[in-house]
Amino acid sequence: MTDGARVLDPSLRNRIMSADEAAALILSGTNVGMSGFTGAGYPKEIPLALARHIVAAHERGEAFKIGVWTGASTAPELDGALAKVDGVEMRLPYQSDPTCRQRINAGEMDYLDIHLSHVGQFVWSGFLGQLDVAVIEVAAVLDGGRLIPSSSVGNNKTWLDQADKIILEVNHRQSLALEGMHDIYYGTRLPPHRQPIPLTHPRDRIGIPYLTCDPNKIIAIVETNKADRNTTFTPPDENSQLIAGHVIEFLQHEVKKGRLPNTLLPLQSGVGNVANAVFMGLKDSPFENLTAYTEVLQDGMLDLLADGKLTFASATALSLSHEALARFEAGIEEFRSKIVLRPQEISNHPEIIRRLGIIAMNGLIEADIYGNVNSTHVMGSSIMNGIGGSGDFARNAYLSFFMSPSVAKGGTISCIVPMVSHVDHTEHDVQVIVTEQGLADLRGLAPRQRARLIIEKCAHPHFRPALEEYYQRALKEAPGRHTPHIMDEALSWHARYLRHGSM
Amino acid sequence: MTDGARVLDPSLRNRIMSADEAAALILSGTNVGMSGFTGAGYPKEIPLALARHIVAAHERGEAFKIGVWTGASTAPELDGALAKVDGVEMRLPYQSDPTCRQRINAGEMDYLDIHLSHVGQFVWSGFLGQLDVAVIEVAAVLDGGRLIPSSSVGNNKTWLDQADKIILEVNHRQSLALEGMHDIYYGTRLPPHRQPIPLTHPRDRIGIPYLTCDPNKIIAIVETNKADRNTTFTPPDENSQLIAGHVIEFLQHEVKKGRLPNTLLPLQSGVGNVANAVFMGLKDSPFENLTAYTEVLQDGMLDLLADGKLTFASATALSLSHEALARFEAGIEEFRSKIVLRPQEISNHPEIIRRLGIIAMNGLIEADIYGNVNSTHVMGSSIMNGIGGSGDFARNAYLSFFMSPSVAKGGTISCIVPMVSHVDHTEHDVQVIVTEQGLADLRGLAPRQRARLIIEKCAHPHFRPALEEYYQRALKEAPGRHTPHIMDEALSWHARYLRHGSM
Repeated sequence: MTDGARVLDPSLRNRIMSADEAAALILSGTNVGMSGFTGAGYPKEIPLALARHIVAAHERGEAFKIGVWTGASTAPELDGALAKVDGVEMRLPYQSDPTCRQRINAGEMDYLDIHLSHVGQFVWSGFLGQLDVAVIEVAAVLDGGRLIPSSSVGNNKTWLDQADKIILEVNHRQSLALEGMHDIYYGTRLPPHRQPIPLTHPRDRIGIPYLTCDPNKIIAIVETNKADRNTTFTPPDENSQLIAGHVIEFLQHEVKKGRLPNTLLPLQSGVGNVANAVFMGLKDSPFENLTAYTEVLQDGMLDLLADGKLTFASATALSLSHEALARFEAGIEEFRSKIVLRPQEISNHPEIIRRLGIIAMNGLIEADIYGNVNSTHVMGSSIMNGIGGSGDFARNAYLSFFMSPSVAKGGTISCIVPMVSHVDHTEHDVQVIVTEQGLADLRGLAPRQRARLIIEKCAHPHFRPALEEYYQRALKEAPGRHTPHIMDEALSWHARYLRHGSM
Repeated sequence: MTDGARVLDPSLRNRIMSADEAAALILSGTNVGMSGFTGAGYPKEIPLALARHIVAAHERGEAFKIGVWTGASTAPELDGALAKVDGVEMRLPYQSDPTCRQRINAGEMDYLDIHLSHVGQFVWSGFLGQLDVAVIEVAAVLDGGRLIPSSSVGNNKTWLDQADKIILEVNHRQSLALEGMHDIYYGTRLPPHRQPIPLTHPRDRIGIPYLTCDPNKIIAIVETNKADRNTTFTPPDENSQLIAGHVIEFLQHEVKKGRLPNTLLPLQSGVGNVANAVFMGLKDSPFENLTAYTEVLQDGMLDLLADGKLTFASATALSLSHEALARFEAGIEEFRSKIVLRPQEISNHPEIIRRLGIIAMNGLIEADIYGNVNSTHVMGSSIMNGIGGSGDFARNAYLSFFMSPSVAKGGTISCIVPMVSHVDHTEHDVQVIVTEQGLADLRGLAPRQRARLIIEKCAHPHFRPALEEYYQRALKEAPGRHTPHIMDEALSWHARYLRHGSM
């Protein structure tokens, strides 16, 4: 099956080699741009082979580390394998791998946690250093350097453009019927040469269905048959369903008030259980002809597309369970007219997000009583995953939700705190906070008004009295009453948790 | 002189009245959208008359408060006068008035501190409530509801569109030669009806030179002769000159590296002494054919325009000293081809800022060792001014500087702290921090790398050892080493200042 049949340019057939041979072309000290976004479309063979090479080098007493740049999160075969062998010097722009996270928080790996929409222009502008090699999974290699992308696009266009050398991983497990589902826009430039991006609806196609590259830069082609990190679908738990219920009720209220059309506006959503619950909840909602303009197409969204409730979805990656992938592949001819996959510089572009008027729905680790949101850090010091696209969307959205259960770790942590221990989304960018307890619409509210509402609507009853007590005392003791805080105590809930295991 | 000569639509002459008569048309409990941006183009007579009405109402034992919405900061005759009589319920989106600030920090006035680019769409979308009256300064009233704007545009288009009733203040002190210097774009819409904004260079004109309104909504016209809040120009102090020197040296380095053209990219700058110093410093720089795309045109920028070093400036307001205003008015025919004033929804629009690739230069109150910036709060609780446009520009800029002297209040406060007491610009959005001590280029650096650089380059030598000590101890004691912090101590510098008057 992996017989070169998907390398349709005969002149490139002689570059087909084993993963080990290809990995040997990646040198220590280089920056490697890999494909992959939310466990989709990442190379499956070469990072594993590279990890073996790194182990061998270390055994020989040689240093071997590389910079790993991706679209977003990948999988154990990439982030996990390279982190395990301590082969990563600098990782960007997003990760969610346990081993990787452990290395970062142990201070053994540097991690650059940047907005996904910024990556392309940062690499183009050159201050991140040279991109030496691109390692990109594709569904097929056509002639003239044209490539059929696989289940994610991410930063692949940028990596193929910017890297000195290219290694392709041709994945025979990815459906060839993906052809035509991608829209790769080649119109972005560095300033002062930028032009308006001509996209005004999630379904607009503004590019071509293929990635392109200079065939002379292709130094290796590796074949594989391995599936994406498709996980088993977990039905939304009760808290997720409660959160989804609050969101949908609020959207209905906004439609009734005339502030949103009954088709809503294009939906963006982070990944996970709450996001799936919202899309499952939308199935029975009164809204019609919905659209999505987002990063990741998950199970909930796919079902809504099949159902007809959602008429179109634009994303940069498919991130489906085994079961949903089977449904997707069975219906791919129909889905092809309802889904487009774009580079993340377009899926997350501030110009487009602002223009389309996205409804953004993202998770939070903790929020404070004044509406600042921490999406990335546990107890102020340890990275969880990264900001991903949440900042791209929240900052420029028309309506922005941050959602989470009100407590974590068996109720020992309150996700509503006096002051967040790290800020990823400021009071200026957070509009609506939702927990299973309720929803706080912060739009148009000053800090003290926000505090009263967040404590009342979002905090868990167990922590509500202590939050109220802090707020009332801050009102009296703080040096100013715009955003009353007690500097000695603002972070005391986190200090208490670190000391006693409970806030 | 204030003889109705500038009300060129005869059918509107009968609406000319005194400021007291016009102010009587503004009722308690209403929201009033006033013109004004950085002390330019605000109404000078009506707010003062309104303040007198409020005093009289209070003396009669009646409550009288309004919501005051503007472009940005105004002047003592507006913010000062209304705050002094306790006549403001809710203020948005920016203020810098001492009396106003005092009321807010005493908890007597609510203040909604929002991104300047968000105001227009927030008001349009309706959740801020109804805008009852617009009070707008203009240079002249033409026929058909056309208005010659004065020295700022700000949110005037939005106020005129959205308000039920309009009161105009015709200012005979504003030069009639301003006619043609404005570019009012009427193409913005609420989603899903938004189209690309066709602006690709600071000098592009995409609208018409007049504000327009429904003449039937005009309920009063008041005439005045009073000047804007033009202040005396203070030459940049030594620290500002040092900061400017670091910025310009860095820009030269970026040009040398090929990361910026020798014409740089359109410049944005906050207001004040440091900003003026940068523009004065650019005069003797090797750069050529500079442009500006910013909010406020200050003295330094005007001189650079006169000099020819700066070829074009786009702004939403003129904020000039007495002396610079005289130079501006003397050369207005020449300046008209070099300056355009736009609505703030365009001057600060994320789509345009990202497209043009702005070089953003804004002030900070404090930055922390990991590169988070506080622009708004003193000691975590008290508002200073507000975020203004700094978030609009920093978030979408191509290159973003935050600048400040390294210490404040006679050296008792370090502007570089372990953890900022409020975050307005997150680690993901801050690229370069500059103090008189030096410049820290944070691009491409992970948190620990940033900490070492900020302490070394930006902190004052007096505070450097204590910062270094905190960082080293955090490296050992923190629960994670991605962003090492000690929750018990992260805000201890602020607590110490509040207790002992020194950090």
